[in-house]
Parts: sequence; C-alpha cells; structure tokens
Amino acid sequence: MTVWIHRRPDSEVAAETAIATRPLAGVRLAVKDNVDVAGLPTTAACPAYAYIPEQDAAVVAALRSAGATVVGKTNLDQFATGLVGTRSPYGAVENALRPGYVSGGSSSGSAVAVARGEADIAIGTDTAGSGRVPAALHGIVGIKPTVGVVSTAGVVPACRSYDCVTIFAADLELAGRAMGVMAAGAGGRPWPPDVRLAAPPKPVVAVFSELPDLDPVWRNAFEWTVGALRERGAQIIEVDPEPFLAAAKLLYGGALVAERYSAVGEFVDSHIESVDPTVGSIIQAARDLPAHQLVTDLASLEKLRETAMASLAGADVLLTPTVPGHPTIAEVTADPIGENSRLGTYTNFCNLFDLCAVAVPAGMAGDAQFGVTVIARAFEDAVAFDVAALINADPEAPTPPESAWPLTIAPFHELVVFGAHLRGQPLEHQLIDLGARWAGPVRTSPRYRLAALDTIPPKPAVTRLPEGESGVSVAAERWLLSPAALGRFLAALPAPMQLGSVELEDGTWRTGFGCAGAAAETGKDISEYGGWRAALAAGAIG
Amino acid sequence: MTVWIHRRPDSEVAAETAIATRPLAGVRLAVKDNVDVAGLPTTAACPAYAYIPEQDAAVVAALRSAGATVVGKTNLDQFATGLVGTRSPYGAVENALRPGYVSGGSSSGSAVAVARGEADIAIGTDTAGSGRVPAALHGIVGIKPTVGVVSTAGVVPACRSYDCVTIFAADLELAGRAMGVMAAGAGGRPWPPDVRLAAPPKPVVAVFSELPDLDPVWRNAFEWTVGALRERGAQIIEVDPEPFLAAAKLLYGGALVAERYSAVGEFVDSHIESVDPTVGSIIQAARDLPAHQLVTDLASLEKLRETAMASLAGADVLLTPTVPGHPTIAEVTADPIGENSRLGTYTNFCNLFDLCAVAVPAGMAGDAQFGVTVIARAFEDAVAFDVAALINADPEAPTPPESAWPLTIAPFHELVVFGAHLRGQPLEHQLIDLGARWAGPVRTSPRYRLAALDTIPPKPAVTRLPEGESGVSVAAERWLLSPAALGRFLAALPAPMQLGSVELEDGTWRTGFGCAGAAAETGKDISEYGGWRAALAAGAIG
Repeated sequence: MTVWIHRRPDSEVAAETAIATRPLAGVRLAVKDNVDVAGLPTTAACPAYAYIPEQDAAVVAALRSAGATVVGKTNLDQFATGLVGTRSPYGAVENALRPGYVSGGSSSGSAVAVARGEADIAIGTDTAGSGRVPAALHGIVGIKPTVGVVSTAGVVPACRSYDCVTIFAADLELAGRAMGVMAAGAGGRPWPPDVRLAAPPKPVVAVFSELPDLDPVWRNAFEWTVGALRERGAQIIEVDPEPFLAAAKLLYGGALVAERYSAVGEFVDSHIESVDPTVGSIIQAARDLPAHQLVTDLASLEKLRETAMASLAGADVLLTPTVPGHPTIAEVTADPIGENSRLGTYTNFCNLFDLCAVAVPAGMAGDAQFGVTVIARAFEDAVAFDVAALINADPEAPTPPESAWPLTIAPFHELVVFGAHLRGQPLEHQLIDLGARWAGPVRTSPRYRLAALDTIPPKPAVTRLPEGESGVSVAAERWLLSPAALGRFLAALPAPMQLGSVELEDGTWRTGFGCAGAAAETGKDISEYGGWRAALAAGAIG
Repeated sequence: MTVWIHRRPDSEVAAETAIATRPLAGVRLAVKDNVDVAGLPTTAACPAYAYIPEQDAAVVAALRSAGATVVGKTNLDQFATGLVGTRSPYGAVENALRPGYVSGGSSSGSAVAVARGEADIAIGTDTAGSGRVPAALHGIVGIKPTVGVVSTAGVVPACRSYDCVTIFAADLELAGRAMGVMAAGAGGRPWPPDVRLAAPPKPVVAVFSELPDLDPVWRNAFEWTVGALRERGAQIIEVDPEPFLAAAKLLYGGALVAERYSAVGEFVDSHIESVDPTVGSIIQAARDLPAHQLVTDLASLEKLRETAMASLAGADVLLTPTVPGHPTIAEVTADPIGENSRLGTYTNFCNLFDLCAVAVPAGMAGDAQFGVTVIARAFEDAVAFDVAALINADPEAPTPPESAWPLTIAPFHELVVFGAHLRGQPLEHQLIDLGARWAGPVRTSPRYRLAALDTIPPKPAVTRLPEGESGVSVAAERWLLSPAALGRFLAALPAPMQLGSVELEDGTWRTGFGCAGAAAETGKDISEYGGWRAALAAGAIG
C-alpha cells in the first residue's frame, strides 16, 4: 500500500459521509502528506521529519467545513521534490492504470487515490507540476490555481514563492466545486477588480510551434485535441516555446532551488541518512549557491516572462500536452534526474510565470492516458476552466459551464440586459470583451414597459411605469462583470441608454438597463411580446 | 564644483529654454549621473565605469519631449550606494545651505542643483531614500513614486527590485508636473483599475508612536507639523514603528544587498582600486552571501510588510520625519557606515514595502532644514501628493490641489453629479470613500429639466427634454473615479437614480446622473434655479 501514508478506518469515513449536508457533503477527501490534518502526522514522506499538527491546514479546514470527509494522508515525492512518484521511503507509487509505470508526482498518492476511487477529491500541491503531472498520467482532472489565491498555511513549503495547493477529481465539475470552496474559505492574494470571469465562447488558443521531447503517438493525440477544439469554434495560434522552456531550466538549473534549501535545508543537512538520496542531493546542492546568482536568475526569469507573455498577447489561453511521455519505474530508477526533468517540460514554467492551469484528460496516447493543460494568465482561472470544459465537453453539443470556481471569491457585479446585449445579439461582444460571464435568463417584475428604439442596432428602452399603472414582466438575461468592467461598460455607454436598478420578478433589485425618459417615449411599444427575442421572432423590431 | 560631473555651457541651455513650448517648456533639468543622457558619459560617480550612451534614459526622453532642457549630469554617492553625498571621487557634496554639513545622498548633486537654483527640476534615484534624504536637507520637494510605475530603462541599477526614479523641485506643483510627464511618457508597471485618485479632505494620518534616533529639536519640529495637520482637519493615529524599522535593517544587514553585487559586483571586483572604499566594502561583502539566506530574508520581509500594512489599515498615509538629524561631513568621515544608516532610519523601509512617498519641507529644526515624508500604499501616489499639499498649504486657506500627477497615466472615468453628490452635500462621502477626485464645476447643455425628488436625502432628477422643447443648463460638478470605483458606485445605486451620458455646454457627452422617467415626473420642477445649490439657497428643496 504505497498510496496512503495514513488512512482512517472505512467505517469512520462512511459514518461521517452519511450525515454530511453541505456543498461537499459525502465527498471523500484524500490529503497529500505535506498538508496538515489535525491529529494525523505530517511526514512530507520523511518519517524523521514527522510532526503531529494541532490544526488543519487552512484548505483542509475549508473543505471539511463544506462537508468533505478526510480519508487519509497520501504518499508523495519527499518534500514535494519530484514529478515521478518514486522518491519516497513509503515506496514508489505505481500508476493505477499501467502496472510498472510511474504514477507521476509529487502528488502521487493523491492522484492514485482518486483514480482508484478511494477518494472523490484529493488535495495536492504544485510548484513545478506536481498537481498536473499525476493527473495526466491517470486520466483525471487537476486544477492548479493562480499562485497565492489559495492559502498555503499548514503546508510544508517546497519553494515558498511558487507553491500552490491543488485539487484532483475525476471530473471538472467536482474539482471546480472543491477549488471554489478552498478559494472562498482559505483565500490569500486578493483578486483584482478587473478579473475576467469567463472565456469567450470562441476562445483564441495558443499552442507551441514546436513540441520538444514529445513521443510521436503523444503528438498525434495532442493534434487530435487541437483539431477538436478548432471544430468547437476555437481559433488556434502558434507561439514560440523557447522562453517557456528556458524558464523551466532555471527552476532547477539555476539558483531558484535555494528556496528548497531555505524551506528544509537545515533539516536535510542534519538528517541526511533519513532523506531520499535524490531529494537530498538536490536540496544540499542548493546550500552554497550565492545570493547574487539568485538575483540575476530572477531578473532573467522576469525577462523570459515578459517575452513569453508578449507572445500570448492575442491569446486567451495556452494549450500544451501536460507531460511529453510516460516513463516506467525502471526508467526513472535508471535516470532519476533526467526522466524527472523531461516530465516537467510542459509544467515547470507555469508557476514561475505566475500562470494558472487546469489539467484535463484528452483520450489515450497508445496505452497511456493522454492529458492536456489549459494555461491562463494570473487570476484568469475562470478562463482556463471554461476552455478545459470545452475540451471535455460533449462534442455534439459543447455548452459553456454554468459557473466557474472563481465566482465563489472573485469580485463581480450583475448586469441585467434586455436587447442588443442578450446572448447572440449584436452587442454581446462588448460584454464578452470585458470578460463578462453569461449567467442565464431572468424576468423583471410586472411593472415595466418595453419599447424598441430606432437606433443601429435597435435597442430596448425598458422603463418602470408609475405606481398604479399595470406593466409587463420583461424577459432579460444576466451577465456577471468585474467592478472595473462594469465601470468601463458604463463609461462607454451612449445616450439615451442608462443603467440603474431594475426589479426582478422575485422582488429583488439588480443593476440593469434603463433609458432616458424622453427617448423611451419615442420608441415603439413592444411590451405585448414580453421580451426582445419574442418581439424579434414576431418581426416587430427594425 | 562637486555638484556637476558634466555641465553644458549656459548659452546652450539658455538657447534651448528660450524656444521651448511644451508643458515643461523652459524648465532646466539636472540629471543624476547614473541616468543616461545621450552623448554625455554616464559615470555613476566612478570614472572607470563610465560609458557614453547613445540614447536618453526613458525618463530623460520623456522630460525632453515635454520641453525640459538638460543642464548637465550631477554628482552622487558612487553607484547610488549611500545616503550621505560624500562617497564620490568627484568630491563630497557639501550642503547648499549649511557649510560643513552633508548634502545627503545618493542624489546629492541633483538636490543641490535645485537648491542653488542651477536647475528647476532634477532627476534622482531612490532605493533606500536617495530621492528623499537630500530633499529634506535642502528644504525642497522630492517625489518617490510607487516602485516600477516609472521606467528605469537607461538607469544604472543599484537594487533592481527596489530602484525608483525620482524628481526634485523647489515646489510640489512643479515636481508633480514633471513626475506626471515621466509617468505618462516613460511608464512601467500598470496602474490598477481601482486606484485611489485623491486623499479624503480630512485624511487619517498615521505617525509612529516612538521616533527613535530623532534629535530633540527635530522632534519639536515634527510635532509642530503634526499639530498643523490636525488643525487642517487630519485625524492623527499612532502605529508601532517596529516592523518598519526592522525592515530597514534587512536592507543592508541581510542578504538583500546581493542585489547590489548582482548589478555591479563583477565590475567592482575587477576595478577595486577605482572604487570608493566604503562603497567597495559594502558591495564586495555581498558576494558570498548564500542564496538561501536571501530567500529567508525575503520571507521575513514579507511578514514584516504584512504586519506593517495591517497596522496602517485605518490610515490614508503614514507621516514621518524624512531624516532624524543632519550630520557634518566630518561626522560622516569619522563613521561612514553608522551615520549613513542613521540617515536612512525613516526612508529605508519604504521601497521594500512597496510604498510611495513625497518628501516636503516643513520649516526648520534649529539651523537645519526640517522635512517630513508622506508615505502611502503602492499606487496611492495621488493620496500622498494631496496630503503633502495639505502640509505645504496656506495655513489660513488650505485647498486641495486641482490635480495630482498620477492623473496623467492612471485609468479613470468621469462622473457628472447634480445634487446630493456635490462637494459638501450629504452623499459626497460615497465618492470620497471610493477614492474619487473632485474636479470642479461644469454645466449641461441647455436641454435639461431639473427636478427634486422626495427622497431622503432629496435627490435631483435631471432629464433630457425631447427635441424641440427648450430646457435649461444645469449646474453640475465633476468627479474622477477609477473604473472599479465607477462600477461599484453604479452597483450600489438605488432606484430611481440611473447613470448614463449627459451633454455638457461645450457639446461633449460625459457619464453622469439621470433618473428613471416616471420617477422624474413625480419630482418638483426646480429648473428655474439652474442648479441644486441655487435651489437649496432659495429654500426650494425639501
């Protein structure tokens, strides 16, 4: 049993899941053993390092508050140093689906626990790919949020500046639900007031112009995924992989690894006999790196980041294979550093560049699971999530997900629209361009008049009738926008349109469209249709 | 002549200033000699390091484009390493006002050039206080913007992560004008979409509960300034200086100084005979610092920053003395490191904590110039500027400045208000709380009707009349708000108020208040007064 380092009795777990009632009620949670669960030892896969925490890590507490039940603590590459899943005194974690092959790491046991159905969700951590690589090798989902938006309180640090807490689950919906709970209950870095809340329906997807180190059968699998995305409306553009891959080399080849020495170096020095030889050699090699080299490497990294981000300027997301191939345990044993580096080719740069990512399954590459990662700018977690959903969607009827996990915590306002800004109507693009998220139909209270203005394109004038006059309930749709997007939308709004507060049929008031009074009276009354789409269908507009 | 390292002939300078026409037309500019001016050597006060740049530094190009004329290049503490003004082979720069006393540094020559009237503005740089300390010791203004908002392209780095380009001028208006030109023409780090654009009229000003190392007569001067601010409406609160002062110690006592080695260490090692002994010893000592110590120190710094910022949560700005005293050149020669450290007591933490600052004169401390620094959060440069203006204002009639330099570059929208949101009216605080800036009176085109609604407080209903009906021009006032502030303001706006586009008397359209039509018709028509204030004065409202 290499998956679990500590596991609670099944009867205890079953008793808890049976009575839970909240958003994650009945959800069984596995926790990587570098993350504190009160009362269970935290080993970081190094028994000599173990301590028993009194408190849950912030993320564990958040998931438990939402109803999740801890099943146990999972195996990992020691001190989260590795992408292979073999660097642990608790044993190499074998792939759950391919005997003899690695599980991927460092969150090896967490991914396997989900892949085997021993847990519904699992907490991982990710500095260089540890929350994505083992997801890809097991055909499951791994969400790596923007650095810092989820608290790392109660997590053993690997590289403090780049560490993220991640979630594994069999599907995107559950992974997103859990990530939303963690972000809302164990938040960190504040979300910016201009955060994009959705991907455009037809996203621009960047792919690397070359895919180094990719096995041929994996290349075919990637091209199939790209083709499917194109068929679902995505526009594909190519970018140079060079700055991304150069950054990956800085993570271990440069002085950034000093972060690992800062985290656990003194322990490793004084307990070297208890430490995995590969992990020990990596951490001890960082001891004598000079500070000025770290300064220089960080400046180099910033330049690479600027170049890379400039290349992505026209793209909503970057799509890569998650890993370039799948080594056996024997291959990793023979070349522990080389095989590990290769596994990180497409994941290492992500946290260094302050990007977020969602790893999703994308079919098979021969006998191996194939996975891709959707990578987006910092705080554009909802954009990455939506494109990941497009990849995983029913090919016959791809529909955008109704929600995305950042909505549990990112700031937004609502805008109720009636005509040209309805989904599919001529001015919808103004909201899409502002990163707004379509949030479904609503109706006003039956107190309004709907008129069509003689503008190009025609626009709706929705006015509240005086007390005592009977009006109609007008069909509308909701968009969610960041505060800055709402401000920008208003600042660009031409007369006679106005924005104010509109009463919905449930009696609540929401921000929505109105119209200057005199202009509204010049419009053609189409109240009888009860909404713009119905009036359009009846030929009553324009 | 220790002020200038290179100086152009007066006749050339006069010829250029005579024909200049733009915002900084006729303004004479001195440039610290670690900032490139095309064709003049950049020495960084080390002749062996000198090179002749082909291009102006971005900031120099911006100021020249706006009409400023370069007078010459000024002396500095070598490699901008020092706060004293004595560490230069071009000679110690003596204070322009107090013979035998230091000028302060590292931007020593730049401050003296302005103090002596040999330049109207001067570019400095500031990592630990170099743009503030010499301003204080000469009774002039030094603006140190938020780290990164002004480009450092073409500047010899000191500590790349913390270096800022600054401006010296005799008064705040000119310094702000020049800083606005630099920020707009040589920008960097983007301004956030929720940036505060003004200080509240009655700001909350934090001061340290203890003022270590402050000479008694300087303490009296500081207390006088605090008292004057209180009389002008500021609320004074006390905060613990400890985390601020602890961060200062990390700047030179920890591994952060490795940034200086990364910048010029190889040059210093290979030209040690050409380097100032004190500067050389500081930079060479940084060579062997380990990278993991830098990681640990940066983590300590982040914790100190969190503690410090939490203590400032209720404050708009922090006010400190700029320097704790004024040493003689002889005192600095006797204890070059100790006197330098003491001078940085109240400046060192600022860039490390990602704060902005404005150093302004505040009378005398005995025979010395006394200065204070207004320190604000990152991007709250307008807040710091406004409080600095309040300190420098006419005590009989303090009026907020009409503009602040971030308006040349920070994103904002306009909001035209008619009633309860006019300056001094009951809902003004909603805009002040959002960081909005009052921007003076305007009038609508003569096409509107003004009514008073029977709300609490009474609100104006401004409606545009139909074509052909004659209306009135309504008196209004403008506020400037960040995009997020405008969105938040709209989202909180109760019915029947609406926001849309309003025509001003110059024919332009601006975002401003409207009202739902039916509600407007229930209001009392007060158009005849031409505005809310006139109607109030006539007793026509409420």
